[in-house]
Amino acid sequence: MATPLMGHMDSQFMEIAEEVKALLRYVWQTENEFTIPVSGTGSASMEAVVANLVQPGDKVLILINGYFGNRFKDMCERHKAEIRCLNRPWGEVFNDDEVEKAILDFKPALLFCVHAETSTGACQPVAKIGRMCRDNNILFCLDTVTSIGGVELRLDEWCVDACYAGTQKCLNVPPGLGPLSFSQRARDKMNEVEKSQAWYLDLRMIEKYLLPGTGKKRSYHHTAPVSNVLGFHEGLRLVQDEGLENRWARHRETAEYFWAELEKIGLKCLVAKENRLPSLTTVCIPPGCDGGAVCKYMMQNYNIEIAGGLGELGGKCWRIGLMGMNSTKKVVDTLIPKL
Amino acid sequence: MATPLMGHMDSQFMEIAEEVKALLRYVWQTENEFTIPVSGTGSASMEAVVANLVQPGDKVLILINGYFGNRFKDMCERHKAEIRCLNRPWGEVFNDDEVEKAILDFKPALLFCVHAETSTGACQPVAKIGRMCRDNNILFCLDTVTSIGGVELRLDEWCVDACYAGTQKCLNVPPGLGPLSFSQRARDKMNEVEKSQAWYLDLRMIEKYLLPGTGKKRSYHHTAPVSNVLGFHEGLRLVQDEGLENRWARHRETAEYFWAELEKIGLKCLVAKENRLPSLTTVCIPPGCDGGAVCKYMMQNYNIEIAGGLGELGGKCWRIGLMGMNSTKKVVDTLIPKL
Repeated sequence: MATPLMGHMDSQFMEIAEEVKALLRYVWQTENEFTIPVSGTGSASMEAVVANLVQPGDKVLILINGYFGNRFKDMCERHKAEIRCLNRPWGEVFNDDEVEKAILDFKPALLFCVHAETSTGACQPVAKIGRMCRDNNILFCLDTVTSIGGVELRLDEWCVDACYAGTQKCLNVPPGLGPLSFSQRARDKMNEVEKSQAWYLDLRMIEKYLLPGTGKKRSYHHTAPVSNVLGFHEGLRLVQDEGLENRWARHRETAEYFWAELEKIGLKCLVAKENRLPSLTTVCIPPGCDGGAVCKYMMQNYNIEIAGGLGELGGKCWRIGLMGMNSTKKVVDTLIPKL
Repeated sequence: MATPLMGHMDSQFMEIAEEVKALLRYVWQTENEFTIPVSGTGSASMEAVVANLVQPGDKVLILINGYFGNRFKDMCERHKAEIRCLNRPWGEVFNDDEVEKAILDFKPALLFCVHAETSTGACQPVAKIGRMCRDNNILFCLDTVTSIGGVELRLDEWCVDACYAGTQKCLNVPPGLGPLSFSQRARDKMNEVEKSQAWYLDLRMIEKYLLPGTGKKRSYHHTAPVSNVLGFHEGLRLVQDEGLENRWARHRETAEYFWAELEKIGLKCLVAKENRLPSLTTVCIPPGCDGGAVCKYMMQNYNIEIAGGLGELGGKCWRIGLMGMNSTKKVVDTLIPKL
């Protein structure tokens, strides 16, 4: 990001942007041509999904087992979708049968779920859900903010049609871009929906800027955040350097080591072991302990950031991220004695 | 921007964000409390104005003498405003009488104009327009993308109610943030309008994140692009270091020197001298000259970026920016012999 600036329409920058798109396809394991960084943070790419795929009256099935399902619901309400929610207590995951039942009963046009719930530390298995969506002609939308680049994730194999993420979790890139990928089925829907209120996130306009098509001239839409794209390029390149599957394995090994160490010192995790995210662990705050004071103490004395619970888990859990370069046994060994 | 990251909810970052808001007030010459960097590029802050101040049926008067008036119109159409446009050929500016006539005739709730038209190089005098808006209870919205930090600009004195900008022009900060300021009158309107489709740019939610009010806890909305905010802080600090009026004077002196040098080598400017922007000059491409080839040659041989005309000025003008640290006689002396 400290590289001297270049113009956002310069061929030099556009070459880098092309490489970013290709690297992002690799990290997400997709061949979707429409795979881009949206010029805002992860929440902007989440909204880009809704603003470009949901129009008034569309039936949307939302799986809610944490904070971000509710956010998606808020966005869909603003677009006057017909919404049905499937709920699970925070920290749990959905089983395929209940999802199938809801699909067959409600017959949605679009189904949303969160792969890696940043608020709870739960990892939703989605391969079968994706298959059911494809078989029932439903667009499958997936939040991968806390899994991209750290947790096994295969968009094409899992039949994901619309996917978004952030850069600041397992990719270790400063926040400021929202990776987004649309399958051809999502692109077809995008080209059908009525113009929404969203101009900045209008992907039909952004398509002409970032994906003009062979031989066509790029047309100006907005000014891409050049330095962020350069930083993102480097973050993705480091994933490629390490190898995606090696990186997934490293995150998993570190997490399992961390969970075992937590157990040794008597701390419990919120999420059942088989559903835990390797990248983010929710640790139950023991009775009588002031969780917020611990976060403050760790930051002030050791420069270690532990997040508090989000939403209904506020005061009940710590959220401890082991993401990207921080996912090592050495980091765990530094942390554990201080807990 | 190369400063190591800090958490976006950390008090250390929030202190810097507070300083950014104070410095931005200085650079815009306003006491508006609601003065923030929006987490997207300039176009995002433009849309934030529309999405938070314009609701269906609102009468909006748009002054169009270049590319960005049309963009504002597109956004207002998406929000189903009742729109009237006042047009002027690109490169010209509006006179106060015609604006007054349109105000009295149409009685808009909101008036929009561009202070510094990036597409034409014209600088619109707005002090009287602002006064007329205030006297007629009209919200006055101003685009200051290419004037902020380089051209005289006094939001409060000029009765501006809603203002936005970019960071990448006279402030020399990489693109990625959209400075925005609302007067109390604009805030009152913002609190009245119906919820729009915009979640990411919903300023009532962002208010609770960036402006929680004394003693209240900040609530999470999105993850601010931390590195961009740090870079913006430094850019604003450099303006304060130099002194705002010194900086305006430097931009003006450099531009006048540049215009005189252009005349010496026989090149003409599009905009009448009294209406020219100091920060961006549109130079007419002489008959028979391939303007695009010149841009390419300058970039490839000298690493000097000259932009082509935008919109209807495509092929007719070059756009030459002398912004921030590039606004010096030395830069002009480097450029002129190569033209």
